[in-house]
Amino acid sequence: MKIEILAVGSELLSPFFQDTNSLYLTRRLNDLGLDVTRKTVVGDDFEELSGAIRAAAAGSDLVLIMGGLGPTGDDITREACAEALGRPLVFKEELLVRIEERFKRRGKVMPPSNRTQANLLEGAEVLQNDNGTASGQWLLYGKTRLALLPGPPRELKPMFEAAVWPKLQDWRKGATKRLAFKITGLTESEVEGRIADLYPKIPELRLTILSSPGQIEIHLTSFGEEGAGGAAAALEILGGEIGRRLGDHVFSSAGEELEEVVGRLLGEGRRTLATAESCSGGLLAGRITNVSGSSAYFLEGFITYSNRAKSARLGVSEDLILARGAVSPEVARAMAMGVRIQSGADYGLAVTGIAGPTGRTPEKPVGLVYTALAWDGGEDVRRNLFLGGREPVKFQSAQKALDMLRRRLIGAGTI
Amino acid sequence: MKIEILAVGSELLSPFFQDTNSLYLTRRLNDLGLDVTRKTVVGDDFEELSGAIRAAAAGSDLVLIMGGLGPTGDDITREACAEALGRPLVFKEELLVRIEERFKRRGKVMPPSNRTQANLLEGAEVLQNDNGTASGQWLLYGKTRLALLPGPPRELKPMFEAAVWPKLQDWRKGATKRLAFKITGLTESEVEGRIADLYPKIPELRLTILSSPGQIEIHLTSFGEEGAGGAAAALEILGGEIGRRLGDHVFSSAGEELEEVVGRLLGEGRRTLATAESCSGGLLAGRITNVSGSSAYFLEGFITYSNRAKSARLGVSEDLILARGAVSPEVARAMAMGVRIQSGADYGLAVTGIAGPTGRTPEKPVGLVYTALAWDGGEDVRRNLFLGGREPVKFQSAQKALDMLRRRLIGAGTI
Repeated sequence: MKIEILAVGSELLSPFFQDTNSLYLTRRLNDLGLDVTRKTVVGDDFEELSGAIRAAAAGSDLVLIMGGLGPTGDDITREACAEALGRPLVFKEELLVRIEERFKRRGKVMPPSNRTQANLLEGAEVLQNDNGTASGQWLLYGKTRLALLPGPPRELKPMFEAAVWPKLQDWRKGATKRLAFKITGLTESEVEGRIADLYPKIPELRLTILSSPGQIEIHLTSFGEEGAGGAAAALEILGGEIGRRLGDHVFSSAGEELEEVVGRLLGEGRRTLATAESCSGGLLAGRITNVSGSSAYFLEGFITYSNRAKSARLGVSEDLILARGAVSPEVARAMAMGVRIQSGADYGLAVTGIAGPTGRTPEKPVGLVYTALAWDGGEDVRRNLFLGGREPVKFQSAQKALDMLRRRLIGAGTI
Repeated sequence: MKIEILAVGSELLSPFFQDTNSLYLTRRLNDLGLDVTRKTVVGDDFEELSGAIRAAAAGSDLVLIMGGLGPTGDDITREACAEALGRPLVFKEELLVRIEERFKRRGKVMPPSNRTQANLLEGAEVLQNDNGTASGQWLLYGKTRLALLPGPPRELKPMFEAAVWPKLQDWRKGATKRLAFKITGLTESEVEGRIADLYPKIPELRLTILSSPGQIEIHLTSFGEEGAGGAAAALEILGGEIGRRLGDHVFSSAGEELEEVVGRLLGEGRRTLATAESCSGGLLAGRITNVSGSSAYFLEGFITYSNRAKSARLGVSEDLILARGAVSPEVARAMAMGVRIQSGADYGLAVTGIAGPTGRTPEKPVGLVYTALAWDGGEDVRRNLFLGGREPVKFQSAQKALDMLRRRLIGAGTI
C-alpha cells in the first residue's frame, strides 16, 4: 500500500513557505492505519509537475495532489494531470454555474479567468468545495486512486473530510488510538532512561518523543483491528506503565498545556493567583492569561524589572536587594510573598534571574533563575540553571514557576 | 539546471516532524541564483530510498540528500546510494580512526555499530563533520553531482557551508540581493493595493508577501550578474518606490522586530517606558523584554486583570470603571496616564479589551481593544477591532500599542 502526497506551488520551493497540509493529511491517514510512503513538492512548472504526477500514479495506490487549482496562469495542476494521465479535460457547464453563483452571492461578476476551474478530467468525480471556487477531483487511473485538492488549508480540510475520507474507509486497517503525555521537570535523556526498555517492538504500536526546553512529550499511537485485543490493548498497558514510571512529572495526558492544568486546578479549588516577574518579563502572566476564563482566578501581575519597582510594588527591602542582589533566593522569596500580600491572592508566584545574553557576573551566569511560590503559611524557592538563549530561558522560567504551583495544588512533593 | 533536495527519515513522514533543512538549503542556493526544482521526503525504506535516489540522479544536475547517515540499522542512505548508483561501498580505515578518536575525546569507547559510518561510496570525496560522527560524501555520477549530508541541522549547516558551498561556486549565476520590509497598520489587501502595479515582470527579481495578523512582510530578492545594472539595480529602484508608497507603515527594512525598533528609539532618546495591560495579559511587556538590554528603558509593567487592580495600581477611578466599563476609551486613557505617573516613566502604554472567546457583550464584541499612550503633555487612545482567536487578538493588541509609541517617537502622525 503506497501513498504519495504531492504539493504543487513554486512558493513551496522558496525559503519562505512550507507545505503544512501534508501533516494534517498524514494524521488522518494514520487514523486509518495507513502510512505515507513519499512526499513530493514541485513548482508551477508543467514538465516537472506532469512528470511527478506520472511517476506517482505509476508507483502508488493513492496520490493526493494539493494546489494549483486556482484560476490564474500559474495554476496548471488540471492540465498537467490531463497530460500525465492521458485524460482530456472536459468543460462542465454545471461547474461554471456554481462558480458564477458564488461570485453573484458576493455581489461580484466572475472574471473570465475562472472559467478554467470548470474543467474536469474525463471520468473524474467532482469534490465539492464549499469554501472556494476550486473544485476538487477524484479519479481512478488503473488501480491508482488520485485526488486533486485545493491548496488553502481552509478549503482542503473540509473537502478532505467530506469527500475523500469516506472513500478511504475500505482501506481502513483498523482503529487508531492515541495517547500523549506532557512532561516537565525531567530532561529528554532522563525521560528516555526511564522508559528505554518500553519501546514497542511491534509496528502497530509507535512511540515518538518530542523534546523542547522545559517540556517533553511522549506520543503513543496504535493501529489495529477494531475490537481486537492487539495494539490498542498494548497501548493501554504501555501508557499505564509510562504513567507510573514518570509519575507526577506528567502534567497532562489529555492535551492540556501547563497553564491550562494550573488554571483548572485553581478554578476547582476556587483559589486565586498573582505573579511578580523580573527576567521572564510578563511571559508567565501572558501564558496564564492565554487561558480563556483566567480572569476568574488571575488577579494581577507585576513586571518589576527595575529594583525600584521591586521595592515600591512588592515591598522588597532595598537593603535586601543591595545585600543579596536582585537575582537571589532571598529576593525571589520576598517577591512571591510581596505579590501575594499586595494582591490579596491565595498564591504568589515570582521569577527573578538572568535571561541573558547580557547581565551575567562571575557568580551569576546566564540562565540562573530563582522561582518562588508563596501561600498561606509558607514559601518555597528553587534555584534553576536553564540552558538556551533569552527566549528559551524565559519559557523555562515560566514553566518551572507554573509547575511549582501545580505540584502544590495537587499535593505533590517539590522537585 | 535541475536541483533536487531529498530528505530521508520515517519521522519526516509522521504528523509530528517536518524537514526544515530544505528551507535553509534553498536560501543558500537562491544566494547563488539557483532555484530548487523538487523536494522529496522518503522514509527509512531501502526500496523507496534507492528508487528515489536513482530517479533524482537521473533527472537532476545536483542532488542534496539529507539524513540516514547515523550508525543504526535505520540509517541506510549509504547502502541505498550504493545500490541506486551501482557504486560499491569502500571501508576507509582513516574514517574509522576519526570516529574512534571522537569517542575517545569524550572518554567513551566507540560502539561497534559506528563502524558502518566509515563506509564511503567508491569515488566519493569525504565531507568532514566537525559536529558528529557521520561524514558527508560528495560524488560525481555522470554529469550529476550528489551530496550526502547528515540530518541534524547543527551538523548539516556547518558541513554545507565549509564543504559544499565552495563546490557550487562555478554554478553561481551572479550576486543575490535581498530587501525585506516589515509593515504594520495596513491589511494585506491594503498593502497589495498600494503596490499591485509594481510586481516585477522579470524572473531575476522576485516579490513575496508574507502576511500574519498585525504584520505584513514584503521580501524582494534579485538574482543577476555581479556589477551589472540589471536585477540588482531594479531591486534598489523597486525597494525605493515600495518604501515611498508605504511610508511610515514600514517599521523596519533591516530585519528588526517592532519591539526592537521601539527599544532602539527609546534608547537613542534616553526615554523610559512602563506598561499597563488587561487583555494582552503581559504579552506587551513580554515582547518588550524579549529585547536584550531592555532593562535600560523598560521600568516596569502592570497586568491589571481585575478592576480592583486597575484602581489600586494605576489609580483608575472605580466610578469611571463602573460608568464606562473596563473596556472603554476612558479607562484605557486612565490606565496609560496612571502607569506613567506611578512608574515615573516618560511613556505609559496601556491595553484593555476583550480577547475572547468569552466576555463579549452586545455592544462590545470579541476583538474590541482600546490601546492608549500617555506622554509628558498628552495622551492618545485608539479603538481597534481585531479578528482572530484569543492569541492573535493579544498579539495585534501589543503590536498596535508598540506602533503607537513608535509613531510618537519618530514624530509620525497617528493612524
